[in-house]
Amino acid sequence: MAVYTEVSDEDLAAFAAAYDFGEVASCKGIAEGVENSNYMLQTAKGPFILTLYEKRVKPADLPFFLGLMEHLARSGVQCPVPLKGKDGEALRTLCGRPAAVISFLSGMWPRRISAEHCSELGTALAGLHRAGQSYDLKRANSLSLAGWRELFARTAPQAAENVEPGLGALINGELDVLGKAWPADGALPSGIIHADLFPDNVFFQGGKCSGLIDFYFACNDLLAYDIVICLNAWCFEPDGAFNITKANRLLASYQAVRPLTAEEKRALPLLARGAAMRFLLTRLYDWVNTPPGAMVKVKDPREYLHKLNFHRAVQDIGAYGLS
Amino acid sequence: MAVYTEVSDEDLAAFAAAYDFGEVASCKGIAEGVENSNYMLQTAKGPFILTLYEKRVKPADLPFFLGLMEHLARSGVQCPVPLKGKDGEALRTLCGRPAAVISFLSGMWPRRISAEHCSELGTALAGLHRAGQSYDLKRANSLSLAGWRELFARTAPQAAENVEPGLGALINGELDVLGKAWPADGALPSGIIHADLFPDNVFFQGGKCSGLIDFYFACNDLLAYDIVICLNAWCFEPDGAFNITKANRLLASYQAVRPLTAEEKRALPLLARGAAMRFLLTRLYDWVNTPPGAMVKVKDPREYLHKLNFHRAVQDIGAYGLS
Repeated sequence: MAVYTEVSDEDLAAFAAAYDFGEVASCKGIAEGVENSNYMLQTAKGPFILTLYEKRVKPADLPFFLGLMEHLARSGVQCPVPLKGKDGEALRTLCGRPAAVISFLSGMWPRRISAEHCSELGTALAGLHRAGQSYDLKRANSLSLAGWRELFARTAPQAAENVEPGLGALINGELDVLGKAWPADGALPSGIIHADLFPDNVFFQGGKCSGLIDFYFACNDLLAYDIVICLNAWCFEPDGAFNITKANRLLASYQAVRPLTAEEKRALPLLARGAAMRFLLTRLYDWVNTPPGAMVKVKDPREYLHKLNFHRAVQDIGAYGLS
Repeated sequence: MAVYTEVSDEDLAAFAAAYDFGEVASCKGIAEGVENSNYMLQTAKGPFILTLYEKRVKPADLPFFLGLMEHLARSGVQCPVPLKGKDGEALRTLCGRPAAVISFLSGMWPRRISAEHCSELGTALAGLHRAGQSYDLKRANSLSLAGWRELFARTAPQAAENVEPGLGALINGELDVLGKAWPADGALPSGIIHADLFPDNVFFQGGKCSGLIDFYFACNDLLAYDIVICLNAWCFEPDGAFNITKANRLLASYQAVRPLTAEEKRALPLLARGAAMRFLLTRLYDWVNTPPGAMVKVKDPREYLHKLNFHRAVQDIGAYGLS
C-alpha cells in the first residue's frame, strides 16, 4: 500500500493536456503496490492508471519496461499498455518523476488461491515466456546471484542474526552452494521473465486469468526461474504447507504450452532455493531498513526462510507434483 | 491514507450480486480518508465508491448519514448518494462491517487553495445549511464542548505537555473560557452541519465546486460553527498566516445565500476558538494514541494550537474580512 507522490490538480491538468482523453474527472491514489505511486484516472474515454515511477525504478530501464508491455500485448498476452500522448510519447514527467498513463485492466487479484488459479497462472506464464522470445530489448536481472551477495552485504549480517539466530551463517552457506551449482549461461532456456509474478500481479475475472500487471522487475533470465518464483508465491498455504496439487496444476498447464527440458526439471529444486533466497534477502533488507514511521507494511522475511528450507530438503521433483 | 479491510474477490462477488450494476470489473483500495475503507469499483454502469465503515462510525448513526446524503442530493446539493440494492436497501454487510455503495462524484480536491476556491466553498456550505433545514433526522454533535472535555481527559494532560510545554494548562484554561461563553441553545441559528469540511472533502472541476463528500461527522449544531471550521481549514496559509482575502470571499459568498445575524457575527471569534480546540484535541489524541507501526500519517496538533492562538487574539471581526 503506497502513494508516495501527491499530485496537485494543476500539475495533473497540465500533464493530462498531453493526452487525447479529455478532462480528467477524477484522480485517486490506489492503495496497492509498494514501489511506485499509482492513481486511478476517470476520463471521458474510461478509466486509466497513472503511474509515477519512484526511486526504485531506474529511469534508463523505463523504455525496456514500457516497450515490453507493448510488445507482449501485440503478441496476445493480456496486459496493460502505455498510452501514447498527442506527441506519440508514452513516457513523460510529472512532479519531477518519470510518469506514464497505462490502460486499465479488468479483474481482481485473488486473495484465496485455488488450484484453478494456479492452472490459469501456468498458461499465462508460458504465454508470456513465448511472447517474450521475440522482444528485442534486453535487461540483465539486477537481482540474480551477484545481486544477492551485494544485497546481503548491504543488509549487514548482524541484522540477519537479530531477525533469527543463525540466519546470517545460513545465508552465507546457501549463497556459496547456489554460486557453485547455479546453471551456466546457455545451459537452460532463457528469455524475458516477469520475475515478480505474485498473486497481486495476476488479475482474474469470472475464474479466468484476465491479465498480468507490474512488469517493473522484468528482465532476461532463466525461464524456469520465473516458474519457481511462482511455485513459491502461489503454492504454499498460509500455514506454510506446500500444496503439491497446486504445483502440479501450475506446472502441467505451463508445460501444455512449453514443455520443460529434462535439465530444467532437474534444476527446479536448486532454482527454487535461489528464488526463495532472492525474496528472503529483499524482505530482510526491507525489514531492517524500513524506518518505523514509513507507511508500508513490511513483510516477514521468515516466510521465505521457511520456503528456502523446504526446497533444501527436496530430494526429487516428485515433491512438486512432477514425474 | 488508509484501507483497513481487505475484501476478497469471493466476498465482493457475493456482495455485488445484491446490486443491479452487473459484474465488478475492478475493485481498488483508495489511498484517501483515514476513518473508513474506500474502494473504487468499476462496473458496466460506470464507477462507484464502496465504503466499509470501520470502528469510528457507529452503526446506529448510518441511517442518519445515508439518509442525509439522499436528502441533500434531492434538495440540489451536489454530493454522492447511496445506491440501493435490488432489495431497496442501501446499507448491508461486507467482511463483518456495515457497507454501502455510493455514487461516484467527479472532481478533485484542491491541493493549493485559492481565494476562488473559498468563494465556491462559501456558496456550497450555505446551500448545504439551507437544504439541511428540511431534514427530519437529528444527530447530536459528539465532538462539542462536553465531548472536548472528555477527549482531553482521555488524552492525558501529561501527554499534552510532551507535545508542547504549557499546552495542558492552556487547554484547561481555554475549555473553561469556552464553557462559560459558548452560546446558549437557541441563541444562534442551528441545523445540519457538515462538521469536517476540509479541502479533501470538497471537489472541484474546471475551477467550480463539483460537490461535497464525507458526511460522517454531520450532526445538528450551530451553523456558524461549520463556517469557522472552514475558516480554520481553508484560510490559513502553509506558513501559518491568516489570509483575510480568502476569509472575506468565503464569508461573502456564504452570506449571499444566507446572511449571518448580528449575534452570529459577534460570536465568530469565540466559535473559531472552539473549532480550533476541537481539532487540536482530536489531533492531540491521535498524536498520542497512534501506535508507531500504524499506516496513517498523524497530523501535527500544533497547527491547530497556532490557529487557536490566532483567534484568541482577534479583537474585531474585521480580522476575518467582515465589516
